Amino acid sequence: MGLSPILNASSIAVVGASKAETKRGFQAIKILLDEKFEGAIYPVNPKEESILGLPCYKQVSDIEGPVGLVLITTPAPTIPAILEDCGKKGVAGAVIIAGGFGELGKKGKAFEDQVVDLARKNKIRLIGPNTSGMMNLKNHLNLVGLRKAPKGNIALLTQSGNMALTLITEAGIRSQQGISYYVGVGNEADIKFHEYLAFFQEDPDTKAILMYVEGMRDARTFLQQAYQTTRIKPIIMLKSGRSATGKLSAGSHTGALAGISEVAITAFRRAGIIVIEDSDELFPAAETLANLPCIRNNNIAIFADGGGHATIAADKLTSLGVNIPELSDKTKAKLRKILPAAASVRNPIDIAGGADANPEIFAECANILLHDSNIGGLLIVGLFGGYSIRFAEILAFSEEDAAHRMGKLVSEIKKPIVLHSLYNYARPHSLDLLRYYKIPVYDSLEVACKCMGVLAEYGHYLHSYKAKEKFQFSKGRKSRARGREIFRKARAKGRMVLLENEAKELVSLHGVPIYVDHLVHSAKEAVEASKRIEGDVAMKIVSPDILHKSDAGCVKLNIRTPKDIRQAFNKIVDNAKRYNPSATIKGVLVSPMVGEGLEVIVGTKSDDQFGPVIMFGIGGIMVEVLKDVVFRVLPISGRSARMMIDEIRSVALLNGFRGYPPADKTAIRKLLLAVSEITGSYPDIQEMDLNPVIVHEQGLSIVDARIILKKETDSSHW
Amino acid sequence: MGLSPILNASSIAVVGASKAETKRGFQAIKILLDEKFEGAIYPVNPKEESILGLPCYKQVSDIEGPVGLVLITTPAPTIPAILEDCGKKGVAGAVIIAGGFGELGKKGKAFEDQVVDLARKNKIRLIGPNTSGMMNLKNHLNLVGLRKAPKGNIALLTQSGNMALTLITEAGIRSQQGISYYVGVGNEADIKFHEYLAFFQEDPDTKAILMYVEGMRDARTFLQQAYQTTRIKPIIMLKSGRSATGKLSAGSHTGALAGISEVAITAFRRAGIIVIEDSDELFPAAETLANLPCIRNNNIAIFADGGGHATIAADKLTSLGVNIPELSDKTKAKLRKILPAAASVRNPIDIAGGADANPEIFAECANILLHDSNIGGLLIVGLFGGYSIRFAEILAFSEEDAAHRMGKLVSEIKKPIVLHSLYNYARPHSLDLLRYYKIPVYDSLEVACKCMGVLAEYGHYLHSYKAKEKFQFSKGRKSRARGREIFRKARAKGRMVLLENEAKELVSLHGVPIYVDHLVHSAKEAVEASKRIEGDVAMKIVSPDILHKSDAGCVKLNIRTPKDIRQAFNKIVDNAKRYNPSATIKGVLVSPMVGEGLEVIVGTKSDDQFGPVIMFGIGGIMVEVLKDVVFRVLPISGRSARMMIDEIRSVALLNGFRGYPPADKTAIRKLLLAVSEITGSYPDIQEMDLNPVIVHEQGLSIVDARIILKKETDSSHW
Repeated sequence: MGLSPILNASSIAVVGASKAETKRGFQAIKILLDEKFEGAIYPVNPKEESILGLPCYKQVSDIEGPVGLVLITTPAPTIPAILEDCGKKGVAGAVIIAGGFGELGKKGKAFEDQVVDLARKNKIRLIGPNTSGMMNLKNHLNLVGLRKAPKGNIALLTQSGNMALTLITEAGIRSQQGISYYVGVGNEADIKFHEYLAFFQEDPDTKAILMYVEGMRDARTFLQQAYQTTRIKPIIMLKSGRSATGKLSAGSHTGALAGISEVAITAFRRAGIIVIEDSDELFPAAETLANLPCIRNNNIAIFADGGGHATIAADKLTSLGVNIPELSDKTKAKLRKILPAAASVRNPIDIAGGADANPEIFAECANILLHDSNIGGLLIVGLFGGYSIRFAEILAFSEEDAAHRMGKLVSEIKKPIVLHSLYNYARPHSLDLLRYYKIPVYDSLEVACKCMGVLAEYGHYLHSYKAKEKFQFSKGRKSRARGREIFRKARAKGRMVLLENEAKELVSLHGVPIYVDHLVHSAKEAVEASKRIEGDVAMKIVSPDILHKSDAGCVKLNIRTPKDIRQAFNKIVDNAKRYNPSATIKGVLVSPMVGEGLEVIVGTKSDDQFGPVIMFGIGGIMVEVLKDVVFRVLPISGRSARMMIDEIRSVALLNGFRGYPPADKTAIRKLLLAVSEITGSYPDIQEMDLNPVIVHEQGLSIVDARIILKKETDSSHW
Repeated sequence: MGLSPILNASSIAVVGASKAETKRGFQAIKILLDEKFEGAIYPVNPKEESILGLPCYKQVSDIEGPVGLVLITTPAPTIPAILEDCGKKGVAGAVIIAGGFGELGKKGKAFEDQVVDLARKNKIRLIGPNTSGMMNLKNHLNLVGLRKAPKGNIALLTQSGNMALTLITEAGIRSQQGISYYVGVGNEADIKFHEYLAFFQEDPDTKAILMYVEGMRDARTFLQQAYQTTRIKPIIMLKSGRSATGKLSAGSHTGALAGISEVAITAFRRAGIIVIEDSDELFPAAETLANLPCIRNNNIAIFADGGGHATIAADKLTSLGVNIPELSDKTKAKLRKILPAAASVRNPIDIAGGADANPEIFAECANILLHDSNIGGLLIVGLFGGYSIRFAEILAFSEEDAAHRMGKLVSEIKKPIVLHSLYNYARPHSLDLLRYYKIPVYDSLEVACKCMGVLAEYGHYLHSYKAKEKFQFSKGRKSRARGREIFRKARAKGRMVLLENEAKELVSLHGVPIYVDHLVHSAKEAVEASKRIEGDVAMKIVSPDILHKSDAGCVKLNIRTPKDIRQAFNKIVDNAKRYNPSATIKGVLVSPMVGEGLEVIVGTKSDDQFGPVIMFGIGGIMVEVLKDVVFRVLPISGRSARMMIDEIRSVALLNGFRGYPPADKTAIRKLLLAVSEITGSYPDIQEMDLNPVIVHEQGLSIVDARIILKKETDSSHW
């Protein structure tokens, strides 16, 4: 059933309805009437008989007809009683405008939780609280204090009323596109981002989903849903609160937790979301993706009249990762035939004044360029639309004709055209015609380029992305009995960390062929253990109370003979006791000496919003000086693991450097996947730290391993 | 005298004047008449009697009155004869519109040089060729095909007619500011960027200089001039052609060489230029810097109505390096007194609807905030200007009053206010009032933030920059007789490289205390040399024909006794002969063993546009894997040297890492300065390579050094 009864409600009650024109409870009804809401409107106010000609009800439960949705405009403390009453009536949903909930901190959050519980008990779904409202432009259900929003195919989902106002205003001024729905998610107390996504995914009138996000309540579920949705329609998002001050600012007006931005943005991109950094580019990117075919091969042509614009566009597109390839000889020859001698047919193409008397040439060139199979889209920059303004009015017909032809070309050939025009401000008819054909026109070169960029990015995502990503764990389904026992034993002994050999055993249990050390408790056992090891051995203390083992004299390397092993054992234990007389000594590890290789680190930690996150980097100075590490929200796929390895800046070190052999990337990938699986298998894990890991030409060795347990077993991150 | 007779010309001849309305020679005269040029206009065309009511002359030399400037609209081949004629008349300058010169390649360049020679002979300065023209808005000297450009205080200097058109159009639509002059520099064949700068620096009506640059003919002189100019007025520049394709595109339409962008941008910034990357931000940055006081302390306040805008602005400003500090308790208390309870007085300040009925509160808050001595400027984001549109028309008076008060506040307190307004599109009177007070208003959040960013950047430059930068060498003035002798000897022997010990001696001559190795020619000499060295010695071959000395067995380390030294000498020479029987052997170097330290590299190379450029980086994997190096145009100051060292990403390695002692940064700085001085002292040097250099806790050792000579001694880069 989903959110349809709420977002498509055909009857609405306004609680807090008022005759005072400045009150929200008056304005809400006025707007519903003015905008011609197609359903029934029921003002609710115990003190009034009628408002704006509509009979007024004392309470929602007094209304005779069915009530789909209730708009509550009264303050926070009144909400519980209203919800109880709504419950009697059996309404499907309520929009709570009031603030005074989770955004105010702990106390507010407790009240919010109480309201949500009450709503659940009464089977009412909540939008908000602390929201600017919602709109359905199809049945004119406008519960926002904003009139005449342009109707279109973009669903708008934001955490800021102001950004909604900005985006809707922009749609009205700058484009012929508009919105299908708007929802201010507010504190996401009940209905969460992912539920709205699921609804918009199915809505036939929505072609793109535009989001402004400061933080999320259930980011992992959102990612999983977004990953489904982006296969069907594009999601365009601006994630703000990236800076410390921005985060603070976000925190002060929404109840959301602003999260680690780098992790978040990588995760959103992995789910196919188009992440935008510049608010100027947000609506343009959405209208472009909602209306134009994508670029399949990341190759575009730039068509300009004069050099400056072309040069700037080439710089910008290159920085966005879009190629501007050489044209084929055939295409060049065709262009040369119709362009003046001064024109350059190298991509970017510069018509060099050749359209001054004949702007129709734009359509001809567009036709030639988009028929080149190597060209996936066309960006036109410069003066189109303004030849009639700049040179002769009569050229307007020629420009309009070109606009018609280009509009038809796009729908025939299924490749996009985007325009930059200096004359956009004058709104010549030719540019409005292009918009009629859903070709966007911008007066900003950078925005026009960004639109080509997102068409290429989404096209690439859709056409190259075959791996199956998962953003939710399979909840312990892959745990092993022996693994569970390790945790059980540690818990039983009141330990908050796994011992080094336990952690290594866990990794080994999940399919990574590493050597799992022997924990021995006597010199004799040590000698026995060493017999199963080829070559020299390393020995070190296992004690939760001794962290700096080398400093304590509790590590011995390169030992071989039984005599030396016995001596080493005794020395290690003596040193440990001397170093910290009260230390609990669990035993001594006997391991083979680790061979040559490259040092890397692998770890997990828990992100406020996304839960478990995995980190990978090359060890030593790369981590300590350059912070050259990459993160992913867990779980990860094989493809994500491969991408992580290739994303670190110093990846060349893994590929065999200065004559060193290449490191075994497959082994690293398997280790990353095992860590992902382990994290999803045992809810006890707070964080893991495999550091250092030595990667050999074949295989790897984990030199030290640490797993910290949660205070309580908790599977909430799943 | 400078360019005043040309750019302020009071009489103009138009060569190629025409009666045909589509011709530039007609339009040029029409525009001069329409725009009411204040001086005399002389059409020149041998076939006409009069054009547009003005008597026509057969040639320039036939004109009776004085002629300051000649606009030549005829094609390239006609230029030489016209210039000869102009010479007879004694005109000061000519604007050459025609293309067909350096931008076409070698042949075009030769013709261009010929035209320039002719102009010099005739004492005529040239603007262009290949230019869109020039404008002086003060005396209405408009030689561009563009009417009604808004007059103002920004001088516009571009290499693209289209970008000029874009910027002038934008000025007209978006601001109340305009331009003082426009010059399309074209191919810079004669008058170069730096000469225009010098003129604008002195022009009392120009408050900022706005440049669009693709490449430059004489970048070093430009930098030196810009460095002077930016102390007096700001220069705002977009440098395009950063990408390979962009560069190609730039090359196809200007005769300029597009240069190494990273080097260029660092150099421009060092000269105090505000480098802009986004063309959307170019005019806004210029109008802001032309009209507002700078931010002195990099600290600003953000004032918002609702959270989204504030959060986005905080993110953007943080990424621009501007601080958004906590407000003082006093300021907070003052704000709290007048703001509603829901407002947040943490910076960013969120008035949270508190202005809905009373927009005057903006002026009150601005007054409080700018009187906080820790706050250097104010960014207002959101709805200002729109309260009258959104809530009640009567609020317009209150908004206008607030605009007046904020306008006066800025000029009294000498701190800037910049506005973002969602309602800018509607052009409410209050926003035009702000513009009247030269407070810029933008509908883009990012652009408004960028304007704060450039005010902070330029303010920081002006108030913190005391070091004396030089961008031109002192032309050999610091060369040493012994240094010149080294080059002379090498040249005499036909060598194209200096030997290792020669290069080291040169560095030592210029004040770096390094050990200069002994070059010995016999085992006996080697033993003698070793006696002057404390501790073990290293020995290696010196031969221009053996590059990989270790591979050839021609390096021996840690040798001490006379016997070992003798053996080593013979072995090295034997190995060298075996490795390459035809190698010229110059001798063997005997050096002390180099102590512990951090490996760095220092080098110079020659940039197409900027000439000698210095490079510095930490050696080993940092260079080879991470390309962690920084560049500067030479010469450099002590401050620049210090900044170079601190700019490398892995600088932590120099600061003492993992218990290693810190490296001697002062010694590195001295070495960089010595390399700068050497490059400016000997015109023979093509490039230098000091690699590796080992930096100790005190001092440094140059392990290997190479200097490659130019084919011919050439001091053109000076």
